[in-house]
Amino acid sequence: MSHNTFGHLFRVTTWGESHGPALGAAVDGCPPRIEISEAEIQTWLDKRKPGQSRFTTQRREADEVKILSGVMPQEDGRLLTTGTPIALEIQNTDQRSKDYGDIKDRYRPGHADYAYDVKYGIRDYRGGGRSSARETAARVAAGAIARKVVPGVSVRGALVQVGPHAIDRSRWNWNEIDNNPFFCPDAETAKLWEDYLDGIRKAGSSVGAVIEIVAEGVPPGLGAPIYGKLDQDIASLLMSINAVKGVEIGEGFAAAALTGEANADEMRMGNDGKPLFLSNHAGGILGGISTGQPIVARFAVKPTSSILTPRHSITAGGEEVEVMTKGRHDPCVGIRAVPIGEAMVACAIADHYLRNRGQNG
Amino acid sequence: MSHNTFGHLFRVTTWGESHGPALGAAVDGCPPRIEISEAEIQTWLDKRKPGQSRFTTQRREADEVKILSGVMPQEDGRLLTTGTPIALEIQNTDQRSKDYGDIKDRYRPGHADYAYDVKYGIRDYRGGGRSSARETAARVAAGAIARKVVPGVSVRGALVQVGPHAIDRSRWNWNEIDNNPFFCPDAETAKLWEDYLDGIRKAGSSVGAVIEIVAEGVPPGLGAPIYGKLDQDIASLLMSINAVKGVEIGEGFAAAALTGEANADEMRMGNDGKPLFLSNHAGGILGGISTGQPIVARFAVKPTSSILTPRHSITAGGEEVEVMTKGRHDPCVGIRAVPIGEAMVACAIADHYLRNRGQNG
Amino acid sequence: MSHNTFGHLFRVTTWGESHGPALGAAVDGCPPRIEISEAEIQTWLDKRKPGQSRFTTQRREADEVKILSGVMPQEDGRLLTTGTPIALEIQNTDQRSKDYGDIKDRYRPGHADYAYDVKYGIRDYRGGGRSSARETAARVAAGAIARKVVPGVSVRGALVQVGPHAIDRSRWNWNEIDNNPFFCPDAETAKLWEDYLDGIRKAGSSVGAVIEIVAEGVPPGLGAPIYGKLDQDIASLLMSINAVKGVEIGEGFAAAALTGEANADEMRMGNDGKPLFLSNHAGGILGGISTGQPIVARFAVKPTSSILTPRHSITAGGEEVEVMTKGRHDPCVGIRAVPIGEAMVACAIADHYLRNRGQNG
Amino acid sequence: MSHNTFGHLFRVTTWGESHGPALGAAVDGCPPRIEISEAEIQTWLDKRKPGQSRFTTQRREADEVKILSGVMPQEDGRLLTTGTPIALEIQNTDQRSKDYGDIKDRYRPGHADYAYDVKYGIRDYRGGGRSSARETAARVAAGAIARKVVPGVSVRGALVQVGPHAIDRSRWNWNEIDNNPFFCPDAETAKLWEDYLDGIRKAGSSVGAVIEIVAEGVPPGLGAPIYGKLDQDIASLLMSINAVKGVEIGEGFAAAALTGEANADEMRMGNDGKPLFLSNHAGGILGGISTGQPIVARFAVKPTSSILTPRHSITAGGEEVEVMTKGRHDPCVGIRAVPIGEAMVACAIADHYLRNRGQNG
Repeated sequence: MSHNTFGHLFRVTTWGESHGPALGAAVDGCPPRIEISEAEIQTWLDKRKPGQSRFTTQRREADEVKILSGVMPQEDGRLLTTGTPIALEIQNTDQRSKDYGDIKDRYRPGHADYAYDVKYGIRDYRGGGRSSARETAARVAAGAIARKVVPGVSVRGALVQVGPHAIDRSRWNWNEIDNNPFFCPDAETAKLWEDYLDGIRKAGSSVGAVIEIVAEGVPPGLGAPIYGKLDQDIASLLMSINAVKGVEIGEGFAAAALTGEANADEMRMGNDGKPLFLSNHAGGILGGISTGQPIVARFAVKPTSSILTPRHSITAGGEEVEVMTKGRHDPCVGIRAVPIGEAMVACAIADHYLRNRGQNG
Repeated sequence: MSHNTFGHLFRVTTWGESHGPALGAAVDGCPPRIEISEAEIQTWLDKRKPGQSRFTTQRREADEVKILSGVMPQEDGRLLTTGTPIALEIQNTDQRSKDYGDIKDRYRPGHADYAYDVKYGIRDYRGGGRSSARETAARVAAGAIARKVVPGVSVRGALVQVGPHAIDRSRWNWNEIDNNPFFCPDAETAKLWEDYLDGIRKAGSSVGAVIEIVAEGVPPGLGAPIYGKLDQDIASLLMSINAVKGVEIGEGFAAAALTGEANADEMRMGNDGKPLFLSNHAGGILGGISTGQPIVARFAVKPTSSILTPRHSITAGGEEVEVMTKGRHDPCVGIRAVPIGEAMVACAIADHYLRNRGQNG
Repeated sequence: MSHNTFGHLFRVTTWGESHGPALGAAVDGCPPRIEISEAEIQTWLDKRKPGQSRFTTQRREADEVKILSGVMPQEDGRLLTTGTPIALEIQNTDQRSKDYGDIKDRYRPGHADYAYDVKYGIRDYRGGGRSSARETAARVAAGAIARKVVPGVSVRGALVQVGPHAIDRSRWNWNEIDNNPFFCPDAETAKLWEDYLDGIRKAGSSVGAVIEIVAEGVPPGLGAPIYGKLDQDIASLLMSINAVKGVEIGEGFAAAALTGEANADEMRMGNDGKPLFLSNHAGGILGGISTGQPIVARFAVKPTSSILTPRHSITAGGEEVEVMTKGRHDPCVGIRAVPIGEAMVACAIADHYLRNRGQNG
Repeated sequence: MSHNTFGHLFRVTTWGESHGPALGAAVDGCPPRIEISEAEIQTWLDKRKPGQSRFTTQRREADEVKILSGVMPQEDGRLLTTGTPIALEIQNTDQRSKDYGDIKDRYRPGHADYAYDVKYGIRDYRGGGRSSARETAARVAAGAIARKVVPGVSVRGALVQVGPHAIDRSRWNWNEIDNNPFFCPDAETAKLWEDYLDGIRKAGSSVGAVIEIVAEGVPPGLGAPIYGKLDQDIASLLMSINAVKGVEIGEGFAAAALTGEANADEMRMGNDGKPLFLSNHAGGILGGISTGQPIVARFAVKPTSSILTPRHSITAGGEEVEVMTKGRHDPCVGIRAVPIGEAMVACAIADHYLRNRGQNG
C-alpha cells in the first residue's frame, strides 16, 4: 500500500480526478491466459454507476471502460491476458465544474478540502478532485479482473444498515439484492429505507450506512502473517474507500462482548472427509490466514458531507463563512459503496492467492 | 505491508516465535541523530510485559531489550541513531514447551493452529509459534523508537470495554490509567472489571475487549491518498494485532446512524489565528490525511481461544477430539493490547511523517 | 522494482504494447506545485522519437503525450502538479501488424520471443508487444517530470561508442550533441560513425553501442545504503532498458586494473570553503551515496537482433526454421537509448532526493 | 530494494555494523518444509571468512551463525523451515576499535566516510560501520538459504581478473577453484596472481578485480519484465556489494562491438526434444526472462581505498590533512567478493522463482 498502488503480486495503480479528462487503473501481475472483456468489466461498473435511481447522485456518467493494454486478441475475437499490465481507462463526460466555483476557497466541513490544502498547498476543488468517489470506478474495473484470478471464488455484497435502520438478518435473501435500488437482501427493510431516504433526500440531508461483503469459495491458506494478514489487507482496502470509518471481520466489535466459549468455532469432520467448522464467528480468517470458510467483512460509511444545510466553516484565507453544497450528490453514499467493497475484497483475495502460490507452490 | 515488514520510510521487520531462543525487530529508516536507549524502550516493554497482575498470563518474561545496531555511542555515553537499521532483540527465557505437547496435533478452536497447518504444512505448535502474542513485544520496542521520530507527538491508549462492560466516557481521566491493572481511564468501571474478570479467570474462561488509542500533536498533512491513507495504515496495523476483529476511526460504526448535519465537524478560526474544529467526529483524519486534530482509533479484541472448557475439534490426522488448553494464558488479552495498539499507531504516524516530509519538503 | 513499477517515493508505473491502442505511465509521488506541460514533456519525447534519421527505425510515430491527471490548471493556463498521480498517455498510430505475421510462431534469435512464450504461454508478437522499445517512450515522459523535482539538476547523455568505434574523449564537446544524428560529443567520430552505420544499414545488419550519462548538480547525500544505493538503483534502471547488457559507474570495469593509489579521489578544501574532490574515479557516488560530484554512468547496448541475415531458430511448435526480420528497425538501437538512459538516471535521482528529504529532513 | 531490504517474495533484511555487538539478517518468505542447518550455512560463511590467507584482511572472526527463528526442530533433530521469518545472527568478536581512532574525523579518500557524514550528520567510523564489508556475512548466510529454494540450481563464482591480469578462459577448470586462495579457475594464472599480490600487499597497496558468477539449472521463465527483470535485479544486487563499479550479463560491454549476426544465439531442437541454444551471448536472459541457459554475470570491484600510502584529504572540520589507513585490510577485496556475488545471484533467482510461481502457477 503505497501512494496510489495496492497489492503485492496482483497490483493495482489508479489515477484520475473527478473533473479531469479521464480516470483509470493499471492492473499489474495478473496471470496470463485469462479471458477478459470490456463487456464483462462493464457489468460490474454498471452496478456502481451514478444516476441509476433517485437515491444516488444525478451526475450522468456512461463509465465506459476501455482496455488499452495487456491483452492479446485471439482469432475468435476473445481477449486473453498476457501477463503484462492491463491498462483500463474511463472517460469523464459529465463534468459541470462551474457547480463547484463557490467552494473553490471554502472548506466543506467533513470533506477532504482542508486536509488536501494543508498537505499539498494546492487542491483540485472541482468535484473533489482526487478525493471524489469517481476514483472508485477504477477500483471496480480492477476488481472485475481480480474476480477471474481465483477459480471458483464468489464475492458478493449487501447493504445491511442505512442510518439507524438495520436489516433483519433472518430475512437475508441474496436474490433480493437486485430487486431494490439498495443492494438490500431483506425486501421489507428495503421498503422502509425507500421512505426513509426519500425524507433524507428531500431535506437535502444525508445519512451513513453499513455494508457487508461475503466471499465464498476462498481457498484455505491465503494470508501472509504477521504483517500481510488477509484480514489486515481487507481492512486496509475497505478503509481506503472514501468515507469509511470502521471495518469488521466476522463478529467484529461484537466479539468484545463474547466469552471464549461463545466465540470458538468448533470443528468436526464433514461427510466429505474434510474439516468442517460448526460456526463462523471468525469470519473465515484465523491468524490472518483464510480457513476455507466464507470470509465476512463489514464496513461503515459516514454520511456524505455534501448537504444543503449551511455549516460553519472557513476559507483558505482564514475567513469564517457558512458553507452549503449545491452540486449533485448522494443522499446515502453507502449504496454505491457495495460494488466498491466487493472489488476491494476481490483484489485482496486475488493478491494473496498469487502470493500463497508463490511461497507455498 | 508485506510478509513480516510494515512501513514505507519508517520500516519495521519483526521475527521470532514464542518458544524459540529470541525474538526481535529491525527498525529501518529511522532518522539519524535521535537519542534512544535500552532503558527508554524498556519502559514501554514493561507496560506490555506478561505476569504483572492476576489478569494477564502468568508466563514470566523479563522482556529485556538489547540494541544490536544502528546507534553510535557518544563520549557522554548517550546513544544516537545513525540512520542505519536498528536491530532490537529480546531473549525468550520462560518457555515451558512441554505444556503444549498435547496440542501438537490438535487444532484449538479459534486459534491459528489449523490455518497455519493448512497453509504451510508444518507448524511450530509450541506456545503458538509465530502466531503467539509474544511477537508483539517486538512491535512495542519498535513503537518506542517511532515515538521519538515526530517531535511533540503523544500516543496514549486506554481500555474502554471489557466483555459487555463499557466505561462511562464522562468519567474519562487519563491519570487513572496507571492506577489499575487495566489501563482503564474510569476508576469506577475499573472496579467493576476487577470483579467481573475474577469470575472469568476462575471459570477458566476468557472475554473480549475494546481499546481506544488517542494521538495528539500529530502534524496536519500526514497520509498518502488514495492507498496509503493514514487511517488505512492505522486500520491495517491495528488489524494485524493478534485477535483483533474490528477497527474504527473517530465515530466509527456509529457514523452509519448519523446524518450529514450531525457528523460534520464545523470549523472556525481559533484565537491563535489557526483553523479550529468545533468537534472531532472524523477522528482527526479527512480524506486519509491528518487535520491536526487528535487522532482517535478503536479496535476490538476477541476473547482468547485458550480456555479450560473442552470444545469440539479435530486433529491434524482428521480424528474428532475435545480440546482444552492448559497453558498459561490471559483471561482478557485486550488488556495487554493497549501498549501494542499505541505502538502500531505511533509507527504509522512516524512513517507518514517521513513520507510527507519526503514528498512535500 | 516490482513488475512494471519502479521507484519508492517518486514511483513510475508504465503500461502498453507496441501495437496496442496506446501506452502510458502513471507518475506517482511527484511533489505538488511543480509546473509541467505537455509541450515540455514533448521536447524530451521528440529526442527519442523514431524516424528522425536514416539511422533509426522508419516507423513514424508522433509520440504525442497527453496529461490526463494530477495537474490543476491555473488562471493563467499553467498546469501545476497537485501531488496526486500524473497519468501520461501516448497513442500508437503507425502500427503495421501484418509486418509481423510471419514471426508469430517463430522465435527470433536474441529477441525476447522465446522467453515470453516459455514464461507466459502466450505472447503479443506484434512488434514485440511489451518487450518493444516503444515502451521506453513512457519512461522518457516520466523522466521529463523527474527532471523538475530536484532543483538545479542537469542530466545529459552522449553516445560514446558505436560498434568497435569509441569517441576520442579529449574532443568531448557537449555542444556537438545536437549537431549530428547520434548524440555524439565528438564531431570527428560522428562522421566516422555515419559511414560505418551506412554500411551496417545497407547490409541489413545491426551493431551495439555504449552510452554515457552525466548528472550534474546532484545534491550530496542521496542514496539509501545498503540495498537502495544510488548507484544500485541507477544500475537497475539502466539494465531494465531493452538490450542493455552492462552498466558502469565512474571508472567501471577499468577500476579492476587500478591500484588503490590510482583510484583514490583525493580531497582538498575549495576556494568556496567547500570540500573539493581532485578527481572523480568514483563517478560521484561513494558507499552508495552521492558526494556532490557529477554522477557518471555508462551502459552497453547489444546490437538489435532484428536483422535481414537468416539465422537458425525454431518455431513454437518445435520445428527448425530460418528467421529473418523484415519489419522497420534500428541499425543501432543505442542511438535512441541516449534520452532513455537520461530519463532513467533522472528518475533515480528524483526518487532518492525525496527519500533523503524524508529520512533526513 | 528499499533501505536495507531486498527481494519481493524471498525478502532479505540485513542489519549490523563492523564494530557493534553483532550483525544479522531476517530472511522472510522462504517456503516451508525446507531443511536448513547452521552447519550448512556455515560452510558458505567459511568461504567468505576473513583471515584465511595472507591475501585477505587479518581480522579474525569466527563468523559463527545462529538461527534464531523460522525453523521447527523435528524429532530426528533436523530443522525444517516453517514459512515464518528466519533470523540469522553472527556475533562480532575481534573488533579493535582503537585502530580507527585516528580516522574518526578524517575522510579516507575513496571510502564512504565523507558520504555518510554529509548524508546523516553522524557516522560510525569504527571499521567503517555499516559500510564495512562485514555486512556481507549476512548476505552470504541469506544466500545459503536461497540456494535451497530452487530445486537443482547451482550457483558458482570465480575470480577472473586481478589488477590487469585476466585468466586464460581456455584453461577454465571449476575444480581448480578450491586449489588456490583466489577462487581462480585457471591454475597458471593463480600462480601469477600470488606473486603479483604479494608485491601489492608488501607495498601496502591494493588492487581491483573482476568476478564471474555462473548459475546453472535455472528454470526458464524467471524475471518480471519490465522493471523486475531478472538481469536487472542481479545487476542491482551485485552493484549493492561494497566497492563494485560495474556489472555485466553475458557478453556485457563486449556486445557493443558486435554485429547482430555475431551476437545472435541461434536455436535448434536438442536430441531430448527441447529447445537448444547454439551459443550464450545473452548470458541466459532475454527480455529480462531466464531462458534455461546458464546465467552468466560479471562484476568489477575497485581496489580498496584502505592503503598505507598517504593521500590528500580533509577532516570533518574542513582542515586539509594526509590520510593513511593502518587497520587490517584486504590487498584485493575482490577475492572475498566471490562468495558474496554467488549469494546475491542465488537470492535474485530464489525471489524470481517464487514470484514466477505466484504469477504463473
